[in-house]
Amino acid sequence: MADLSGVTGPGPGPALSATARTRHRRLREQGRTAREDLFAVLAAGLVAHLGVIVDGAPMVVPTSYGFDDQHLYLHGSVASRSLADRDAVACVTITLIDGLVLARSVFEHAINYRSAVIYGVPRVVTDPGEKLAGLRLLSEHMAPGQWDYVRQPNRKELAATRLLVLRLDEASVKIRTGPPDDGDSPDAELGLWAGELPLISVWGEPVADPALPPGIGVPGHVSGRTGTAAFPDGPAS
Amino acid sequence: MADLSGVTGPGPGPALSATARTRHRRLREQGRTAREDLFAVLAAGLVAHLGVIVDGAPMVVPTSYGFDDQHLYLHGSVASRSLADRDAVACVTITLIDGLVLARSVFEHAINYRSAVIYGVPRVVTDPGEKLAGLRLLSEHMAPGQWDYVRQPNRKELAATRLLVLRLDEASVKIRTGPPDDGDSPDAELGLWAGELPLISVWGEPVADPALPPGIGVPGHVSGRTGTAAFPDGPAS
Repeated sequence: MADLSGVTGPGPGPALSATARTRHRRLREQGRTAREDLFAVLAAGLVAHLGVIVDGAPMVVPTSYGFDDQHLYLHGSVASRSLADRDAVACVTITLIDGLVLARSVFEHAINYRSAVIYGVPRVVTDPGEKLAGLRLLSEHMAPGQWDYVRQPNRKELAATRLLVLRLDEASVKIRTGPPDDGDSPDAELGLWAGELPLISVWGEPVADPALPPGIGVPGHVSGRTGTAAFPDGPAS
Repeated sequence: MADLSGVTGPGPGPALSATARTRHRRLREQGRTAREDLFAVLAAGLVAHLGVIVDGAPMVVPTSYGFDDQHLYLHGSVASRSLADRDAVACVTITLIDGLVLARSVFEHAINYRSAVIYGVPRVVTDPGEKLAGLRLLSEHMAPGQWDYVRQPNRKELAATRLLVLRLDEASVKIRTGPPDDGDSPDAELGLWAGELPLISVWGEPVADPALPPGIGVPGHVSGRTGTAAFPDGPAS
């Protein structure tokens, strides 16, 4: 079955910190510890799943993000309720699905994926300069070129926006690529087709806002994305 | 900024239960409470993000899932550590990204998306019959047709597979579609292009396992998916 293993167990951890929860106990071969693997997943992803504890229960919400070489910035309004609890650890997971792994047995089916699991104590960004810089990273990650093209946040909007920051210190990256693992098993004798079904994600044609007056062309930084991989640098792009 | 709001606050809840954590306090217009909306998101999604509490910290792991009209089944090996803690609530979030909402100001940027947030106490499925049925739902959701085409789990594989089940009782669905919200704002006078950039996700051409002997064709239930929407029934599909 599709096994997208999480963060568990002992294993090597040269570049990213290897705490008990970010070591790879299971499926060690899928675990990556190099910092560049983390940044590759961060660069390719679009949305993160932020996990916090609210009233004793986990809450997982999708949110947009941006990053620099030390920090992960998250749009934080979704987590407002949880942030009453200061100094609480959050878990941020970014997952890209590259395709299905179709094996000769149900048991060996899997998913080709890239994922990063990051732990940290989120801090609410209050300094206006830091906030503006963080929001710019977030905006440019999602929609490169828009920050300079559109109207930037005014003081009121900046105050109304909740931005979180986590340090990129404790993380685990997992990547599965390639064909199913049962090509040399007894099941290979079954004579069944096996392989991968890639998932292709690309940006489509821009759709103009119906409220747009005629004569305003799509800017190049938007139109240039059409047909390009939405989650680049994966095996399927 | 992209605001993918989570599950918060008071609001109506006719069909899905409206507990404090699944009511929509923020962005109420994006909240859906109809049970059919939940099933539409479940049917369209591929991977869930499972949130549990491990050693006092949230842990968010991607995992495959399947469902029937009352239950959500999850591949549970990822959550093994957390399941020592019986009767603990888990949060399962399924998110589909349909495109970027490019507005006239940074502040009004958003993401078109569909998401479901489900709360429940996961139970480890131990009954072999229930387990087989749940795994079949999971397998058929991910790769329809494979269950009957490939070798089904034997007793040893069944025992080695961890399957969780949650009741679909407490859930919240959010959907954003359409153009940016600032078409009738003063920013419309800026003369900037605004609209949506759809994200198109389709299944690609099957890639045969290099270990496959020649002469085994791709079965129709696999080849028939090529070019079809991976996350169907969204605005972009």
